[in-house]
This record gives sequence, structure tokens and C-alpha cells, in this order.
Amino acid sequence: MSEITFYFDFSSPYGYLASERIGDVAARTGVKIDWRPFMIGAAFKQTGQEPLLQHPIRGPYFRRDMERCARLQNIPFMIPEKFPYSALAPTRGFYWIASYDRDAAVRFAHDIYRGYFADGLDMSDPEVVIATASRHEINASDMRDAIAAPKWKQHVRDMTEEAIGLGAFGSPFFFFDGEPFFGNDRIDQLEHWIVARI
Amino acid sequence: MSEITFYFDFSSPYGYLASERIGDVAARTGVKIDWRPFMIGAAFKQTGQEPLLQHPIRGPYFRRDMERCARLQNIPFMIPEKFPYSALAPTRGFYWIASYDRDAAVRFAHDIYRGYFADGLDMSDPEVVIATASRHEINASDMRDAIAAPKWKQHVRDMTEEAIGLGAFGSPFFFFDGEPFFGNDRIDQLEHWIVARI
Repeated sequence: MSEITFYFDFSSPYGYLASERIGDVAARTGVKIDWRPFMIGAAFKQTGQEPLLQHPIRGPYFRRDMERCARLQNIPFMIPEKFPYSALAPTRGFYWIASYDRDAAVRFAHDIYRGYFADGLDMSDPEVVIATASRHEINASDMRDAIAAPKWKQHVRDMTEEAIGLGAFGSPFFFFDGEPFFGNDRIDQLEHWIVARI
Repeated sequence: MSEITFYFDFSSPYGYLASERIGDVAARTGVKIDWRPFMIGAAFKQTGQEPLLQHPIRGPYFRRDMERCARLQNIPFMIPEKFPYSALAPTRGFYWIASYDRDAAVRFAHDIYRGYFADGLDMSDPEVVIATASRHEINASDMRDAIAAPKWKQHVRDMTEEAIGLGAFGSPFFFFDGEPFFGNDRIDQLEHWIVARI
């Protein structure tokens, strides 16, 4: 059975918004989700894009759009002072947790996203990420080791390269049976595709 | 009573898709639409953007997305060989027609969009634009004069400047009571805003 591949960056506002909706799609369609955080900065470099909110004209619009979208989804949302940030620590941690428990990794991903976009926690700080993971009874010392381990550093590079190779030039980016969907605002079309292949 | 201001460029695929849906929003909400074509190329210059489909990585995705969106809207759609094009002739013609009959100008706008994106007609050619206008009993000679008149050239420059000044960095771009909405995929949110102000 096909899965939804869900590429996202932990510093991506629309990725956060999507992470709060995509579970409902899975529940309604019975299709599983493969969560794959990657480093959007690397993709931006290759495609010549700049962070959305830094643009003098487009930035203010998209900030307003994000706030409106969050309001319509009825979830808390803020752009923390330190934005964007490099989400290396949570991304490495995610893949380590996922290597032994995919469900725990998804719970961790939700906590990272909410910790940053709802509570404004500094997720570029490994200790904050470790503290967040410890909510799910993940051993702090193991987590600290994983974040620093060459194995998980390399894995994040590999997953990022894979995402870019597939054409994921932004976050969130979904694939289902090879069909690509870019953006929180394409989740309805993704669901429609799963159900009706149109 | 407030109106929806609908900024669009005649060479914009998502503008075409939006033009086929926005009338339904007006019908459902009872709110009128003020159609305002503008020259997106000038906005792109100011915001440092490039035409979406010309990008080597993002281009193929967005072409696929446009085709999928058109399929879901159940309307014919193609990217003509000559794409993008400078829509000066239809834009000048539109404002001349609108100056004496707004409804006729909207019918003309639909014909221009469909002629280009459904039938692949070359709307950069004033004679093709004039032929299109003549379907609605618009005198060809008057139309030819209007397209060449300094008055309508200047008006298009003014409308473009106004759009950019309001922050319309893309097409389609909507405003309702000052609230901005960018993209065919924000029409649902526009309608929700009109009804519920959220």
C-alpha cells in the first residue's frame, strides 16, 4: 500500500500548519504517512530562493497569510524572534528516534513544531530539543549522542539530497505514488488524488 | 458596499483559473467584483521574481499543478507556445471597454483568457485581440484606436503602479476591505473572509 511521503523543514511555518492537518488525511483515507524532515536551506541554495518572510514586499503578505491560515485551522501560531533557524538538531534527533519507533518520532515532531511556533522555544539549541524529547521518555544522554553522531549527520544530508532530487523545492512537499504536491494549501488536492486519482 | 478588487495579468495561468471561479463567489456572497488587469512583469521587476514556469526545478512542478488545478475546476487549459507574453493590447482594450460598459469588459476578459489558455490564440497580437472583442459587437476600428491611444497606455501604467503600490506582487491578487489574498488557492479564504471576517 502506498504511503504519503511528507517532506518538511522544522523551521517552516507552512510545514507546521501542514503537520497539524496531515494526520486527518491519513485517518480519513487509511493511508500512512512517512514523515521526512529535511534541510530546506540546501534546497533554497540550489533553486535560488530566499526565505519567504525576508522579502520586503512578499514577506509582510506571507506573514499575514500564515497567521490567517493558522486562525482558520484554529491552532496557535507565532513567528519566533529567531526566525528562520537551522533545524539540524531536531532533524537529526527525529531520524534517530524514527529508527526504532516511528510513532514516537511523529509525536516528537509535533512537540518540536509546537514548541517553536506556539511557544517560541529556541529549537536551534540542542539542549532545548533534548528537553522536548524527554517528554516522551527519551533518554537525554542517548539523544545528545545521536544529535552529535556522524551517522545521523550524514543521514540528514542524505535525506535532504533525496528530497531535492525528487524536486522538493519547498516545505511542505508531499508525494503520493509519484504525484507531487507543494504547500499546506495542496493538502485537499492530495487527499482528492488519493481517493479519486484526479 | 465593498467590492472585491481582482488584480490579474492576462498572461497569468492562475489568473485565468481564478477568473473562472471568482464569479461564483460574487453570486454566492452578493458582492461585486472590480476586475483590474495589470502588467505583472513590472511587479516582477520590482520584487526580483522571475516567471514561474521558466525555473528549471519549480517550472515543471507548477506546470503540472496548473494542469491539475484546471482538471479539478473542469475547464480546458493549455500553456500556449508563446508563453509568457506581454498582454498590453488586451489590457488597454479592457480598460477602454470598461470605461463605458463594465459587464462587456468582463465578457471580453473571459474571451481573452479562454482564447489564450483554452484555444492558444496569440493575444500579444492586437488584431487577434480586436477580433476577439468584435464577438461582443465592439467596433474593430474604435478598439484599434483605443489600443494605440496614449490615454489607455497611460491608464495601464497607472493601474499597474496602483496594484504594485498596494502590494500585488503576483497574479491573481485580491483585496476585500483592505485584506489581501494572493493566488487562485486563496479564493476560498477570500469568500470566508467576506462572510465571516476571519
